[in-house]
Amino acid sequence: MIERIAILGTGLLGTSVGLALRAAGFEGTITGWNRSPEGAQRALEMGAIDSIAADGTEAARASQVIVLAVPIYSTLDWMEKLAGMLGPEHLITDVGSTKGQIAEAAGRLFNTPERAAFLPGHPMAGKERGGAELAEADLFRGAVWLFTDDPSSERSASGVALVNSWREWVTAMGAKTLDLDSSRHDELVAWVSHLPQFVATALSAVLEDEVGDAPELKDVGGRGLREMTRLGASPYSMWRDIAHTNTEAIERALQTLEQRLAHLRENLRTPELREEFERANEFRREQ
Amino acid sequence: MIERIAILGTGLLGTSVGLALRAAGFEGTITGWNRSPEGAQRALEMGAIDSIAADGTEAARASQVIVLAVPIYSTLDWMEKLAGMLGPEHLITDVGSTKGQIAEAAGRLFNTPERAAFLPGHPMAGKERGGAELAEADLFRGAVWLFTDDPSSERSASGVALVNSWREWVTAMGAKTLDLDSSRHDELVAWVSHLPQFVATALSAVLEDEVGDAPELKDVGGRGLREMTRLGASPYSMWRDIAHTNTEAIERALQTLEQRLAHLRENLRTPELREEFERANEFRREQ
Repeated sequence: MIERIAILGTGLLGTSVGLALRAAGFEGTITGWNRSPEGAQRALEMGAIDSIAADGTEAARASQVIVLAVPIYSTLDWMEKLAGMLGPEHLITDVGSTKGQIAEAAGRLFNTPERAAFLPGHPMAGKERGGAELAEADLFRGAVWLFTDDPSSERSASGVALVNSWREWVTAMGAKTLDLDSSRHDELVAWVSHLPQFVATALSAVLEDEVGDAPELKDVGGRGLREMTRLGASPYSMWRDIAHTNTEAIERALQTLEQRLAHLRENLRTPELREEFERANEFRREQ
Repeated sequence: MIERIAILGTGLLGTSVGLALRAAGFEGTITGWNRSPEGAQRALEMGAIDSIAADGTEAARASQVIVLAVPIYSTLDWMEKLAGMLGPEHLITDVGSTKGQIAEAAGRLFNTPERAAFLPGHPMAGKERGGAELAEADLFRGAVWLFTDDPSSERSASGVALVNSWREWVTAMGAKTLDLDSSRHDELVAWVSHLPQFVATALSAVLEDEVGDAPELKDVGGRGLREMTRLGASPYSMWRDIAHTNTEAIERALQTLEQRLAHLRENLRTPELREEFERANEFRREQ
């Protein structure tokens, strides 16, 4: 029943959504808009979208489902802009990495019988670099796609139908959906996503200082080092909004890890080191 | 010219050395000894060794090259034991992860014209778990194999020839050799190998505490989380000797990272965060 989709932002995620929809058999129209025309052109050439919209607002109005695939603060801007223009025949969804502010705006601006529906979403898929050229139809296969919907939303019947239909397309793209409260979401991703990123950034920065002047020595670490620093390639531009919109939870996670590292450092020669390794082994055993 | 090799310790590394030698065309005999007979039996079945020695000392005496592939303190024990029994027609080499104490023992016990030669070695290859069953002929392909030889060693002519020949076999196994001073080695691996391991252990232990009771949430992190915690599966038994023999360098590395994480945490909302990301990006760019 979804026949017209607009993707606002054809970077890695937006373009991958278009490719994944096509691979899953979506036969309706997919219009794309991107801040820089090159990104939209690339998405068009890759077959992720079948037309480029000069005006994102117009594209949204002409579509049933609008996928916001832009940074978090841009998502919030689009929400404000679209709220007055769209009605109950529209569903907006997003792919932002933090959900507190977005869920708050969704409750304030959408999800009444007279207004457009908004379904906050977050596919746990990505790469250490962005851009349409890295997009893949399989990016979401096997990944978890989180939703932080408010169960008390009172949507129009068409809004409800669009939400259900979009959830089915997400499953068809190969993702496993999981519903969470938005504050629990932000707390959880601080641990399992943001903390690993900031650790990789800090570790890479430290190693650049220590062995950066001897590039031949970087090979020495092998696979373990490569994996532990791969996310170090992530650009600031992808993480600034996350750091700004989930600050307290990330601070808590970082401080907890700092204390754990200090504990480990103070116990390199005591039996307590065994406890730490066994605790870590448990985490991996259950995965 | 090397025709008889003894591998003492047929775990992941020892068994992989046997397999890699065969794959590289070594046609002489390879005898294996292992503390537990099951590990030796497995190595035999895999074709890494062609006979099992009941007595490691006898196997060493009957061979030209003895590869010590046991934990660091066991390596030091074997060095003491073999020193009085072997002569200039023997080369001992090892695969230990720290080299300070081993290089010291090598200088004290070997490497004179009348004594056996000892070449301290360290292949930068491994897995998060050990054991013969995980061994691979390709384990060293593309990896760096470090040597911390003392250039002032005065070996017998046959010792010199065996050292050169062993270096050629290491290259034939697909590894890139690199020579380092032993104290520089221990400092370097504290940064590029030990620090990533202890970070993965601490991160995995913290996450076990935070999300360990909700296993379905572990999926959420995706590839980044899996990579950042893979080394968390490493057993204490593989790391105890490393922590004990390179304590000061590991302490320095851990403390540096703790400070960097704190700096990053205090700057989640300041422009300094950009600097940290850019520094990290540089490390990855040069790789």
